[in-house]
Amino acid sequence: MSAARMTVVDAMRRALVLAAERPVRGPNPRVGCVLLASGNEHDPRMVLAEGRNHGVGTPHAEAEALADAQARGVDVRGSTAVVTLEPCHHRGRTPPCSSALLDAGVSEVVYAVADPHAVAAGGGAWLADHGVRVTEGLLADEGTQVLGVWLDAVRAGRPFVTLKIATSLDGRVAAADGSSRWITGDQARMHAHEVRAQADAILVGTGTVRADDPSLTARGPEGRLADTQPLRVVVGHSPVPASARVRSADGGELVVVRSRDVREVLSVLQEREVRHVVVEGGPVVASAFLAAGAVDEVHAYVAPVLLGSGRSAVVDIGVRTIGEAVRLSTVGVRQLGEDMLVVARPVGPSREEEC
Amino acid sequence: MSAARMTVVDAMRRALVLAAERPVRGPNPRVGCVLLASGNEHDPRMVLAEGRNHGVGTPHAEAEALADAQARGVDVRGSTAVVTLEPCHHRGRTPPCSSALLDAGVSEVVYAVADPHAVAAGGGAWLADHGVRVTEGLLADEGTQVLGVWLDAVRAGRPFVTLKIATSLDGRVAAADGSSRWITGDQARMHAHEVRAQADAILVGTGTVRADDPSLTARGPEGRLADTQPLRVVVGHSPVPASARVRSADGGELVVVRSRDVREVLSVLQEREVRHVVVEGGPVVASAFLAAGAVDEVHAYVAPVLLGSGRSAVVDIGVRTIGEAVRLSTVGVRQLGEDMLVVARPVGPSREEEC
Ligand SMILES: NC(=O)c1ccc[n+]([C@@H]2O[C@H](COP(=O)([O-])OP(=O)(O)OC[C@H]3O[C@@H](n4cnc5c(N)ncnc54)[C@H](OP(=O)(O)O)[C@@H]3O)[C@@H](O)[C@H]2O)c1
Ligand SMILES: NC(=O)c1ccc[n+]([C@@H]2O[C@H](COP(=O)([O-])OP(=O)(O)OC[C@H]3O[C@@H](n4cnc5c(N)ncnc54)[C@H](OP(=O)(O)O)[C@@H]3O)[C@@H](O)[C@H]2O)c1
Repeated sequence: MSAARMTVVDAMRRALVLAAERPVRGPNPRVGCVLLASGNEHDPRMVLAEGRNHGVGTPHAEAEALADAQARGVDVRGSTAVVTLEPCHHRGRTPPCSSALLDAGVSEVVYAVADPHAVAAGGGAWLADHGVRVTEGLLADEGTQVLGVWLDAVRAGRPFVTLKIATSLDGRVAAADGSSRWITGDQARMHAHEVRAQADAILVGTGTVRADDPSLTARGPEGRLADTQPLRVVVGHSPVPASARVRSADGGELVVVRSRDVREVLSVLQEREVRHVVVEGGPVVASAFLAAGAVDEVHAYVAPVLLGSGRSAVVDIGVRTIGEAVRLSTVGVRQLGEDMLVVARPVGPSREEEC
Repeated sequence: MSAARMTVVDAMRRALVLAAERPVRGPNPRVGCVLLASGNEHDPRMVLAEGRNHGVGTPHAEAEALADAQARGVDVRGSTAVVTLEPCHHRGRTPPCSSALLDAGVSEVVYAVADPHAVAAGGGAWLADHGVRVTEGLLADEGTQVLGVWLDAVRAGRPFVTLKIATSLDGRVAAADGSSRWITGDQARMHAHEVRAQADAILVGTGTVRADDPSLTARGPEGRLADTQPLRVVVGHSPVPASARVRSADGGELVVVRSRDVREVLSVLQEREVRHVVVEGGPVVASAFLAAGAVDEVHAYVAPVLLGSGRSAVVDIGVRTIGEAVRLSTVGVRQLGEDMLVVARPVGPSREEEC
């Protein structure tokens, strides 16, 4: 690896790959870093070291790259740090990367995306003030893509909310008697488990706990539990029975939020550093999140099934006439076995204004 | 064209193209015919003539091919007639093709699909009895495809029923105040007009006439009226107001069926030689057709819109628990602008048993 030569833009591509490789869950962004030897801007240069973040409490990507170089006795003075996210500038669980890069004698920093974090931002400007050559925005779109919902969550100061609904063609989430297992087929359910496995938390209301007694675990093929499990969140005033499956040992920690206030629920999750929560219903909770303007993305699994009665996916959200409808923009449509998945995002006022 | 040489299977492909080219609407099937000179089975032979049916009252494909040959003074004795559908064997609006082929001295007949029509069938057997070499089933799947819903309709002895619904993601066809224009976008509506333009009839209940006052015309891009218009059918006991748009001069003939009995409605349409009717709602009529097992295909246009209240696409169809759900099989999923179209067909007992 250390014998390789890359241009700055190739180094950024490599840093993006490093960033994308790590697991998506957790409060930290996915960041990759490549240290290049000094040289001409567009010429290939020696790769001195690489790094990426491995999750909470582990060194940041820049720190890992510097440590890697040091361990191998590589001199990084005068080098260029190519990193997918602006180096952090605050002392959190780890020391700030801005000063670590300066102290190590790095003379140039190129990053894709500015740090959206109110506390951690400013690393680029500080480095520039201290004589480091700083370039922002190289492959910014790709960088944004790799950061995914983390970026939205940090920008908005609250978790990114995916609302998942699984409905019949006539929009029902359960039959007349409340039974809802299963409306969708295996492939759709497996996809939903993949989404769970990448989320920090799964949330339902007390009504769903009562009706379905779900375990809210993330499972892979053949029902195998995923290695790490998202938080399980139940909201509402009613107690969660001692025997409820959400308390089972096989899933993530249970967080009971005894509130019907969406903002309060989100700030509890924010305090727990949840960046991505999947709201899985039922209709009352789904509608509360929608009415609060707190839904960033809808995952609608629609099964070719007709029920004719039973609860609809969404109940009153204050729409009286067609002009007041909550309109989303379709991001994609996919067939999953017999079912289909529509991913859509609200249009209209930006998240910051809504919530 | 008459200088071309084809094998029998290529001639069938050509006949299928001829069949597929004609307009889809009307009581007659799409049929194409190619007459090949006598010769070895797998060798290319001279194409003597071609024909296809142009709609009600015009000569059948075989008759057209024979007439074409005769007009050009081509001798068809000993030839092979390659035709997409079994030659008819009854005197309807035109003489039977079976005897016309025999009389012309055709010595071999190859067809893709057997005639499903109780009255018209038997041409193949009759020809064989009279010494003609008869082969059935060449490219039968392609033949079935070209015949489309006509085949299902004739087999079942009633029109093929497409149920069209246009819903929000939560399955509503109208907002709380009954307004429903528009839930879906331009592309979905244009697609629905293309479907109308190929159907023999469009059907709604008196409730939809009252609520939406639709004109039930088939329109192309820029709202231009299609050249020919499907029948407009309104069902229910209530009278259709004299000022209703379904009476407008720009659409097809209005058929008012003062009945709430789905079978009665279908037999009225059958008498009018409707092979394909599109049921466009509302929820009460849609549910009546579903409950009667009289839906052959569902076209569900789903818009990325949430309403939270308003009528659902389907009302009571007798499903109480999830195990009783009406399950369909997805034929295809398509994105149309922001919306998507799901085409699905009921699974379970075959049409003949259902209705
Ligand atoms: N197909 C699917 O995707 C799916 C998914 C989930 C559920 N379901 C079905 O949905 C049905 C349950 O529906 P549901 O609506 O009763 O369940 P729910 O939304 O999970 O729970 C509703 C309860 O949550 C509490 N709550 C929390 N936040 C609230 C808020 N902001 N506003 C009002 N109440 C709030 C209230 O109970 P407290 O009195 O405790 O405060 C409320 O009664 C079941 O039939 C289940 O099978 C289907
Ligand atoms: N988005 C869409 O795709 C779409 C399409 C159509 C309508 N809509 C909406 O649907 C709403 C109208 O719904 P609707 O259900 O009242 O309309 P509908 O189904 O068109 O009409 C219902 C009426 O049809 C008659 N009828 C005919 N056959 C029947 C049967 N087998 N059983 C019972 N009644 C029968 C009855 O009236 P009589 O008393 O006359 O017998 C009944 O009240 C409006 O809000 C409209 O905007 C939406």
